[in-house]
Amino acid sequence: MERIAIVGLGLIGGSLGLDLSRYGHPVVGIARRAKTAEQALTMGAVTAAGTDLALVAEADVVFICTPIDAVAATAKAIAPHLSPEAVITDVASVKGDIVPAMEALWPNFVGGHPMAGKAEAGLAVAEAGLFAGRPYVLTPTEATNPAALERVRAIAASLQANLCQCHPDQHDRAVAWISHLPVMVSSSLILACQGEADPAILALAQTLASSGFQDTSRVGGGVPELGMLMARHNRVALLESLTQYQQQLEQIKILITAEDWDALHNALTQAQTTRPAYIKPA
Amino acid sequence: MERIAIVGLGLIGGSLGLDLSRYGHPVVGIARRAKTAEQALTMGAVTAAGTDLALVAEADVVFICTPIDAVAATAKAIAPHLSPEAVITDVASVKGDIVPAMEALWPNFVGGHPMAGKAEAGLAVAEAGLFAGRPYVLTPTEATNPAALERVRAIAASLQANLCQCHPDQHDRAVAWISHLPVMVSSSLILACQGEADPAILALAQTLASSGFQDTSRVGGGVPELGMLMARHNRVALLESLTQYQQQLEQIKILITAEDWDALHNALTQAQTTRPAYIKPA
Repeated sequence: MERIAIVGLGLIGGSLGLDLSRYGHPVVGIARRAKTAEQALTMGAVTAAGTDLALVAEADVVFICTPIDAVAATAKAIAPHLSPEAVITDVASVKGDIVPAMEALWPNFVGGHPMAGKAEAGLAVAEAGLFAGRPYVLTPTEATNPAALERVRAIAASLQANLCQCHPDQHDRAVAWISHLPVMVSSSLILACQGEADPAILALAQTLASSGFQDTSRVGGGVPELGMLMARHNRVALLESLTQYQQQLEQIKILITAEDWDALHNALTQAQTTRPAYIKPA
Repeated sequence: MERIAIVGLGLIGGSLGLDLSRYGHPVVGIARRAKTAEQALTMGAVTAAGTDLALVAEADVVFICTPIDAVAATAKAIAPHLSPEAVITDVASVKGDIVPAMEALWPNFVGGHPMAGKAEAGLAVAEAGLFAGRPYVLTPTEATNPAALERVRAIAASLQANLCQCHPDQHDRAVAWISHLPVMVSSSLILACQGEADPAILALAQTLASSGFQDTSRVGGGVPELGMLMARHNRVALLESLTQYQQQLEQIKILITAEDWDALHNALTQAQTTRPAYIKPA
């Protein structure tokens, strides 16, 4: 058993707590608000809880589950309370800037990203088993302590997540493609439709929209704070993907403008053929 | 009871037949291949079937359910066999060019578009109740015979579809937004990802892709023939939507480039706030 501390009790922190306390680890949860800490206790997401960062003192492994822009400040604030052997890991969805900052703050740091989003955020939507069958990326570097990595790996594996390991920069480029770019592509679809100048056409579009539009627009209609933070922290990789996406879309437009239907058919066939590589069995 | 003929026994024709024969209408089905006609009979999608277009002779209402580019030619071929009182309707997903062409061919024509797609095409995936709760658009014009319209309306209503009526051009502009543009946006996402030059990043992106990517890419990975025909027949409206989409996406890119996070947050909030207008209760 590891003594676990979770700082930040939202969807991810709360769901981690539900699983890890169920597996018998003592789990102390720390929230900014007393009410959230109480709620986590009531839900069984933690075995002890409060708002004082000093509560991390006994922990073997600390999960920092705050919003991405608070991770480094949180590490700095808890460091004085921790034993030097304690391991810190995080769950931030972008790693390239966080990992070096954290390594400078705490030698026993292991970057992590459990990929288990939901349409809503917050402790209220936390659930046991959230990470099972989903990717859990660890992003060790040359500076990572192998023993610390092994301990975080073991915990992540116990969640029945699909473990995956790569460099922080590789992680960020990959998630730019499959997570951050889709948010911008999808939100732009909603906003472009809303830009329709004829109110009769707009109303008709809203009436006729069905599962295809609903699926394509889903991530674009998600929590704005998360989309903004993704873009802010993964700006360079996202802009690169966005530029390549724009070029691809322009190519499609050129084919339609030129009425080159064979070439459009070929492009759509290529999309159909290659998509299954991104799709996991249900 | 109306005597129904369905020309073209794919997903839509077959599903219409399953419902209409269940409701007691005599339904004759006409396919290009004898095997398809037999299969439709075996499935109970029709009460009689064959490959000869002359089989439409007894019909009161003919549904032309061929691919969009065969609708007018089919109407021309069946016209000599029909009684002048017979009503022709179609199910094509674009109406602006078909409706005037059909009206010139057959005075009792009513344009229709039952919006019930599936990832796969063909009679094998036809199902009873496919149209229930989904939009069924009728596109009458000044030239439409009101009695013919009323008969097609009554049949569409019996399918428990959500009836909707508009001008062919309004239909095409609305579906460009919510059906045809999403196909191009979504297929371009897949193709742009596949353009990643680093094989390690590409493999990682494929491994990490989860429900968000799957949903955003779904319609882009659909039947290429359908996407190509949509673009071909709704080219002008699609290009207009595509251009406005490109401008919207460029706006988002400008905000990210400029690190204007408040404005990006506002844009994503607007997307989140306006999306529910397009979403139907489950």
